[in-house]
Amino acid sequence: MKKSELIKNFNLNIDLAVEAHELLRGEADTEIPGVSMEEEKHDHATVTTIKIINEQGVQEMGRPQGTYITMDVPEIHDNNYLIHEDITESLSQKLAQLMNLPEDASILLVGLGNRNATPDALGPQVIQKSLVTRHLFNYTPEELQGKLRKVSAIAPGVLGITGIETAEIIRGVVEHVKPDLVIAIDALAAGSLERIGTSIQITDTGISPGSGVGNQRVGINEETLGCRVIAIGIPTVMNAAIIAHNCLESLLEELTTSPTLYKLYKEISSSTFESILGKALAPYHNNLMVTPKEIDTLIQTTARIIAGSLGMCLHPGITIEEYQMYMH
Amino acid sequence: MKKSELIKNFNLNIDLAVEAHELLRGEADTEIPGVSMEEEKHDHATVTTIKIINEQGVQEMGRPQGTYITMDVPEIHDNNYLIHEDITESLSQKLAQLMNLPEDASILLVGLGNRNATPDALGPQVIQKSLVTRHLFNYTPEELQGKLRKVSAIAPGVLGITGIETAEIIRGVVEHVKPDLVIAIDALAAGSLERIGTSIQITDTGISPGSGVGNQRVGINEETLGCRVIAIGIPTVMNAAIIAHNCLESLLEELTTSPTLYKLYKEISSSTFESILGKALAPYHNNLMVTPKEIDTLIQTTARIIAGSLGMCLHPGITIEEYQMYMH
Amino acid sequence: MKKSELIKNFNLNIDLAVEAHELLRGEADTEIPGVSMEEEKHDHATVTTIKIINEQGVQEMGRPQGTYITMDVPEIHDNNYLIHEDITESLSQKLAQLMNLPEDASILLVGLGNRNATPDALGPQVIQKSLVTRHLFNYTPEELQGKLRKVSAIAPGVLGITGIETAEIIRGVVEHVKPDLVIAIDALAAGSLERIGTSIQITDTGISPGSGVGNQRVGINEETLGCRVIAIGIPTVMNAAIIAHNCLESLLEELTTSPTLYKLYKEISSSTFESILGKALAPYHNNLMVTPKEIDTLIQTTARIIAGSLGMCLHPGITIEEYQMYMH
Amino acid sequence: MKKSELIKNFNLNIDLAVEAHELLRGEADTEIPGVSMEEEKHDHATVTTIKIINEQGVQEMGRPQGTYITMDVPEIHDNNYLIHEDITESLSQKLAQLMNLPEDASILLVGLGNRNATPDALGPQVIQKSLVTRHLFNYTPEELQGKLRKVSAIAPGVLGITGIETAEIIRGVVEHVKPDLVIAIDALAAGSLERIGTSIQITDTGISPGSGVGNQRVGINEETLGCRVIAIGIPTVMNAAIIAHNCLESLLEELTTSPTLYKLYKEISSSTFESILGKALAPYHNNLMVTPKEIDTLIQTTARIIAGSLGMCLHPGITIEEYQMYMH
Repeated sequence: MKKSELIKNFNLNIDLAVEAHELLRGEADTEIPGVSMEEEKHDHATVTTIKIINEQGVQEMGRPQGTYITMDVPEIHDNNYLIHEDITESLSQKLAQLMNLPEDASILLVGLGNRNATPDALGPQVIQKSLVTRHLFNYTPEELQGKLRKVSAIAPGVLGITGIETAEIIRGVVEHVKPDLVIAIDALAAGSLERIGTSIQITDTGISPGSGVGNQRVGINEETLGCRVIAIGIPTVMNAAIIAHNCLESLLEELTTSPTLYKLYKEISSSTFESILGKALAPYHNNLMVTPKEIDTLIQTTARIIAGSLGMCLHPGITIEEYQMYMH
Repeated sequence: MKKSELIKNFNLNIDLAVEAHELLRGEADTEIPGVSMEEEKHDHATVTTIKIINEQGVQEMGRPQGTYITMDVPEIHDNNYLIHEDITESLSQKLAQLMNLPEDASILLVGLGNRNATPDALGPQVIQKSLVTRHLFNYTPEELQGKLRKVSAIAPGVLGITGIETAEIIRGVVEHVKPDLVIAIDALAAGSLERIGTSIQITDTGISPGSGVGNQRVGINEETLGCRVIAIGIPTVMNAAIIAHNCLESLLEELTTSPTLYKLYKEISSSTFESILGKALAPYHNNLMVTPKEIDTLIQTTARIIAGSLGMCLHPGITIEEYQMYMH
Repeated sequence: MKKSELIKNFNLNIDLAVEAHELLRGEADTEIPGVSMEEEKHDHATVTTIKIINEQGVQEMGRPQGTYITMDVPEIHDNNYLIHEDITESLSQKLAQLMNLPEDASILLVGLGNRNATPDALGPQVIQKSLVTRHLFNYTPEELQGKLRKVSAIAPGVLGITGIETAEIIRGVVEHVKPDLVIAIDALAAGSLERIGTSIQITDTGISPGSGVGNQRVGINEETLGCRVIAIGIPTVMNAAIIAHNCLESLLEELTTSPTLYKLYKEISSSTFESILGKALAPYHNNLMVTPKEIDTLIQTTARIIAGSLGMCLHPGITIEEYQMYMH
Repeated sequence: MKKSELIKNFNLNIDLAVEAHELLRGEADTEIPGVSMEEEKHDHATVTTIKIINEQGVQEMGRPQGTYITMDVPEIHDNNYLIHEDITESLSQKLAQLMNLPEDASILLVGLGNRNATPDALGPQVIQKSLVTRHLFNYTPEELQGKLRKVSAIAPGVLGITGIETAEIIRGVVEHVKPDLVIAIDALAAGSLERIGTSIQITDTGISPGSGVGNQRVGINEETLGCRVIAIGIPTVMNAAIIAHNCLESLLEELTTSPTLYKLYKEISSSTFESILGKALAPYHNNLMVTPKEIDTLIQTTARIIAGSLGMCLHPGITIEEYQMYMH
């Protein structure tokens, strides 16, 4: 069973477009029609920009038309403050390009996920570390003009805690706050272990149904909210089924040395594989998550990087010292 | 300076109607026109029901027409589980009377306050301990009919964190969820120390501007939300100015033994007193809160009692065991 | 590769004696010399008592001589308060038997693990929910005599946070507090998914080096502390390598239908399997943990059950109401 | 009643030597025999060094012989990162002078206080933000030599949670770890509102019984631990009785204009004043704390400053980038 079949049969979500693209290209590394890809190297980041440019690309990739930028930053694990600063700045630049905002734009930050479940708490943690300014404009609008943009923020909670679809809550708030742009931050599921905590995806398509650690049920995008939506996501978990699958794949590689065996192995049907994986994951099926031991630290670090880069690109008119004076 | 003057001059908020009423009646204990009061004794609670019945009462009391029920439960400090159960049940009954809900009513719980500031975290803590059911009705509505009511819940955060008026967020959610009733839970400011953590106020008037520990700026009531609002509040702090005032009052009592001195003392003008208090509280003026050392425990206990009583009165069709099975 | 080989080659820890015993007995279900096993069924628990009775048993099982009691309580997931009460009571009885304490014994509770890493926080959480009484004996010893035992408690933190071996800290405290018994509580690693959060192990052997989620480096037992040590543990994670292994095992079962294939498969060497698993888990090797999504709730529930049963069996002279009055 | 009488009669603790000294000098600003005082101005700090140099000074000041340095840093409230950096550096220099440590010294950090009571959580928060290195010396001692000092850390908890005197726990650990120096961090009680969160006291006398928010019962000093002890403290609360007293004092100032009244006022006995204050604080007596609304932020900021300055002065052989690489 190919990984792409696993993803489909086990109903797993691969949230990173760059991973979906890799899977699609496969070993043959064929071009995907309707999809363009570009890569640039920075000091501490590799940036891959995937554009889905037409309906054919949408069909192939199974996700909406738009731009998906992934920054791979493996050095984030090093806990070196200077590297983190550098990553923060690179992210800020990419965000500024993607957002392309007028100076007086107003922005609503939305932290998705469950603040009480560590790997799902990325969104609420970013909100907690962010500077909101919208209410300051009621007092001294002229003083802030050209220095700060109007930023508000909510962490709406998850369906199991609120009883309300997250998209409904956000739509309600959007109708009152009337932002020019929503920026939604969410923890994602990775398709490979080494991407956990080290890939940052930003996209102008918003968030699709079924994505994120908590499996967002309704899309959070221009269609559902009526305003532009930028999504920022970092994988914090991986479905355990992928480990099981990796394992069978590694075995397969071994077997290629014996043609008979390889042939027999290939004959095992996809449904048999599914049952094998099912047994290996019982009693949890596709609800079992793998997460590194240091997940608590990882969430704190990545939340700080995202909040920092948002501060830089949303309020370019002030210095970092002034920024810190406004932070409460 | 009388306490009522202090309240006014220092712009303090006395959130409990029962305290406002006491202040108004004063030492002479005069009847307040347009306001009725009744008291009943329970095993572990004294329940005072104040009704503001006409415009004159509204003027006198400086708060909206409606019913204000206060349960005084000093034994809450004893940490005796059986007494807490008893208080939970009494509160549940009073809530049921005040809400007077049809079986199929839908309810939105709103936890006001800042989850990161301990004395202001009562509302968010109640939400965290509450059972939400609204989303379950999408799957098996007929099974739940007559057993559970549709309950949803949000903890919208405070203006300084979100940049959005709390009332705006709630209104946005109400427009989508369309509940029959909003129940808002908030931490209050007491007018006397012994009421901290021991008085529970429930009212059918919602929440007025300027009340609560965080000083809610816009009212959360039928007028602003377009649906009925019940408010539940417990004092968790007291303004330090009241301690200073108490102190001067105790001194005054001492002085009554010397007529000359008393006379001189009475001649001190109200503005002089204000300046005396101002010096005593510098550099904080009216922004300094007094809270008992055990505030963390107090918030946990009272949040559990409110969440428990809401569970009982909102879902009367199920036993306590069934209730716990639905709790996640 | 057999599971027992995996455990050994990957240096995994199987903390439950009952699992080690199962692995050892294997499919043939042979008796292990020097080890006895007994099973009893309760309403909501299956209790397995394994005794390692001589040196041969110690060699076979690779753990110290003593009694290992495991309560399997799968209904713990149901979130039914009455079942939790029943489990608490059963656990309390088993603990009382194993401890066999005189009325005036003094006890030191030790919560092992890292309070900031959710799956490792079981021990510190139990300490937080426990009643300590030792200091009360300084004031009114005669009043407490026969009602409460002298209980003290510490959560010493982990090596990476303190820079000190946990066993060293405990030994230092034991030398001053001089308890008759230490009860150490720790989160364990399971050998199978269904045991996560549903098996409670208590043993009179203390804690061996290399066990627990955080891999305790030095033993915490009578030898290192100089006083009796009872250990209580609940698995909260499973090493991801076991999932990978399960997967290969399920595949093996499939292959048994084809004798040729099966034969070839069996010829794959153990080291090849190791490399296959290594690839599947890269870049984490044996440092990748699987944990269910609801781990936060699980830790709260199990910590409450352990703290509750400790309260019952350590202070049998007081009613549950009195107990709650002492809890602050 | 003079403030010094209030302190004595109400059994309040004034933890800052600089405040005790001010009270003692009184309005007349008389020299205190056996006590020297020096003041220096820094960019963002005023540093006052008080030395108690003989037995007479000990008697007068009611605290042990030694050096008490207080940095007053009112700008800490500004939330300006650059000012915080500057304060961190000044504190680091003062600490280095006071500690006067050889290169290979080993240090045990002790975070006093209750991590669950916000204003008392300063010590545990500093521990959480500190780099411990002692365990690293087991692996690569020669590589670390001259770069890092051996640092270990504990947050022992408070008597009500552990049942054990904090000093006993620390002594037990000290006997095993055998540090050259203990550095104890604690939240203090202020004698005036403006010092809350803005004064940092460091002293080479350790911690005296009865000091700190939690009222440490046994001293933590060279006498009880058998090794040198440096204490670092920041006031986070003030006893409410002082507000009440301030209020009467302000009144007194008003009254000085009327000689008759003033005379009468002065005749009120000390015990009468005590009863007046007692009434004003009922039912809490001297157990009621005043703390600013933003206490949660304040604890985070000051803990970061203390942990940062400790990192600088304990590991002078590494750059700030290397330091961050060692931080996990």
